[in-house]
Amino acid sequence: MDLIFRKTLLFDFYGDLLTKKQKEVYQLYQLDDLSLSEIGENFSISRQGIYDTIKRCDKQMEHLEEILGLVDKFVISRERIELIKSMIEEFKDNQNIDIINKIDIIVNEISDDL
Amino acid sequence: MDLIFRKTLLFDFYGDLLTKKQKEVYQLYQLDDLSLSEIGENFSISRQGIYDTIKRCDKQMEHLEEILGLVDKFVISRERIELIKSMIEEFKDNQNIDIINKIDIIVNEISDDL
Repeated sequence: MDLIFRKTLLFDFYGDLLTKKQKEVYQLYQLDDLSLSEIGENFSISRQGIYDTIKRCDKQMEHLEEILGLVDKFVISRERIELIKSMIEEFKDNQNIDIINKIDIIVNEISDDL
Repeated sequence: MDLIFRKTLLFDFYGDLLTKKQKEVYQLYQLDDLSLSEIGENFSISRQGIYDTIKRCDKQMEHLEEILGLVDKFVISRERIELIKSMIEEFKDNQNIDIINKIDIIVNEISDDL
């Protein structure tokens, strides 16, 4: 997975578990692409202070992902659901009953992983 | 949802975010049904100390649930997946194409909520 995309997903899932200030700093750097110095000026904190805050955010969110795995689960779920959606379309086209059996298998995989 | 079941799910999802000791105490009280005094003896902590630990665990896990909502999402996902499973069985019995359209709707609901 692309690193920027991964960081965006980590922030989507775990951003609300950061403090308000951490969240603001992280968003400005990672998503709005401001420089460390620019953010530092906004918050009256040194460039190094902002850098440390961002590293701490990354570490916290990676720790949460290690335990909860929400980003990984999301990616797998999305793949499976997209596959089922395309299979349903395929079935509507050709009414091939084998497709229903394939959908059944994926639904059971989702069920096992819940 | 039954309170004990809810607490079990909260612990399933968030237990690994508690400290090792919190986790042990919580498990003994909530899942293994030991008394506060019994647990206190095991850990050489007062009954009140154990009570406070358990309350703190409850509060932390409720806070995580408020933000991440994993228990709620799990319950909804399970209902939807069970519904799709039973609809697939129904379709295999009667080959009624309406059922496929109903499955399609639920799959799209899951997709929207990912």
